[in-house]
Amino acid sequence: MQILFYHPDFDSSLWVRSLEQAIPGATVRIWKPGDNATADFALVWHPPREMLAGRDNLKAVIALGAGVDSVLNQLKQDPDFIPAHVPLYRLEDAGMGKQMQEFAVSQVLRWFRRFDDYQDLQREGRWEPLEEYQTSEFTVGILGAGVLSKCVAESLLPWSFPVRTWSRQVKDWPGVHSFAGKASLSDFLSETRVLINLLPHTPQTEGMIDQQLLACLPQGAFLLNLGRGAHVVEDDLLAAMESGQITRATLDVVREEPLPASNPLWRHPHVTITPHIAASTRLEDAVIYLAKLMNALEQGEIPPGQVDKVRGY
Amino acid sequence: MQILFYHPDFDSSLWVRSLEQAIPGATVRIWKPGDNATADFALVWHPPREMLAGRDNLKAVIALGAGVDSVLNQLKQDPDFIPAHVPLYRLEDAGMGKQMQEFAVSQVLRWFRRFDDYQDLQREGRWEPLEEYQTSEFTVGILGAGVLSKCVAESLLPWSFPVRTWSRQVKDWPGVHSFAGKASLSDFLSETRVLINLLPHTPQTEGMIDQQLLACLPQGAFLLNLGRGAHVVEDDLLAAMESGQITRATLDVVREEPLPASNPLWRHPHVTITPHIAASTRLEDAVIYLAKLMNALEQGEIPPGQVDKVRGY
Repeated sequence: MQILFYHPDFDSSLWVRSLEQAIPGATVRIWKPGDNATADFALVWHPPREMLAGRDNLKAVIALGAGVDSVLNQLKQDPDFIPAHVPLYRLEDAGMGKQMQEFAVSQVLRWFRRFDDYQDLQREGRWEPLEEYQTSEFTVGILGAGVLSKCVAESLLPWSFPVRTWSRQVKDWPGVHSFAGKASLSDFLSETRVLINLLPHTPQTEGMIDQQLLACLPQGAFLLNLGRGAHVVEDDLLAAMESGQITRATLDVVREEPLPASNPLWRHPHVTITPHIAASTRLEDAVIYLAKLMNALEQGEIPPGQVDKVRGY
Repeated sequence: MQILFYHPDFDSSLWVRSLEQAIPGATVRIWKPGDNATADFALVWHPPREMLAGRDNLKAVIALGAGVDSVLNQLKQDPDFIPAHVPLYRLEDAGMGKQMQEFAVSQVLRWFRRFDDYQDLQREGRWEPLEEYQTSEFTVGILGAGVLSKCVAESLLPWSFPVRTWSRQVKDWPGVHSFAGKASLSDFLSETRVLINLLPHTPQTEGMIDQQLLACLPQGAFLLNLGRGAHVVEDDLLAAMESGQITRATLDVVREEPLPASNPLWRHPHVTITPHIAASTRLEDAVIYLAKLMNALEQGEIPPGQVDKVRGY
């Protein structure tokens, strides 16, 4: 098995060694300009055009992350970026599910237990127990219902928060209220106290979290963006926070990354910014995932994780 | 069944109604000065002396909370405060376990995912992913191994944090490393990255979290106090934070409550103060617990939750 590897940020040598250890008989090489030699698989993140174009013999291109919007954007502008018949896969979980759970549970509990309100009181030196929220009135609504949404939903249910999801197709997950399709969006939002975005980034979801959507939430709702910055119309969010429609927001992703120093989101007292760290591709988990994925593909199976290049996820 | 009720802060009429609904045949009355009429049980919080002294016919005094240090302190000064043969019970859980889990998990994840460090970076407008901590090196050590400690331990295990407890006697809890006795304390502390205090307040545990104990933790440890303020020598904690031995602390309880405005803990940038709200006695859960407890006592059983008046918990 010949594997090409390209990632602009990772310690590629370490990945090559780990992959070769995990897949007996595999030869993994870091792709460099001019390398046109044969390969079965290409493991990539932000790959240059000349790496993949014309590689008709690839069995698959595998993106080393969960969001493949950047690959698909290049493909849209340049249909030969990946040969048409070569399937594109993404890491659906590979350790990211647990990281998303950590992030989501810590934020939801932080808001549910009013730690930010207590921090405000601390600044004033005020010892003042506040009214407690009830879990029954702390509904968490997740936009998107993929593998990561499922992980997040499952991590919230044990705390007794009502959990609902919104997606294109109805899901049958135990304990989760599934809403599907555009027509049900306002119903989904109307009782969502904490909105968690985990949508894929497609032309249909671009800018979807706008004034109109935010206005459908109950007043004083919370927003956690774990998807893509492009899902949120940032001026609309700031206006909704100004009016009290949204009370606090945590944004792990923003429209322009790194967030420019001049962006007012940095300084909003009720906005938490983290630098796109909610879930990273971790070597150990990813190598296990990739070995399984490539072995399945070698045996002619169609494992989960294939991206519909038109639908966009 | 005749029940006396006394709580200086609760809406007593609401409790009386709920208890009478939950226990068919029970008569519950709010104790008032001069009421010397017969009673089977006394449900109390900070009771006045004349309420319990001389009530030889009580089947039990039940404290409406988990920590009974205030009752025992009065008893120590005044051996007749509760008749010697009347057993004292406390609410071991009654909904407090889940609240402690919410509090502990949110704090441990907050530190594990470095949200405070990211908040510091946000203040400077810096977009800078930080090195991730590994769960394997994020050992949580719980001082105390009662019902609430067990709840907290169980809520941390699913996240893969190594969990250990320290108590008088060895515990056999699945997945938890139990340390017991004074001689093992420094071993327990030596690998505890996050120290959670859930000890009962007794003369033996008073001021136990001092310079010497904190020095046994690995450098840069975190402290979460969910027990009593009197467990911590606050000057020693501040000194340990000054030196970097303790990196961040969350204190739900402090030596003097409410914390005086002049206390430097309010203003320490790495200290979080919450006003003793980690776990409160909630009516619905408590009523179910109390009904079960009193019915068991009526039938001559010895249910869990009895306080050893000498040992102190």
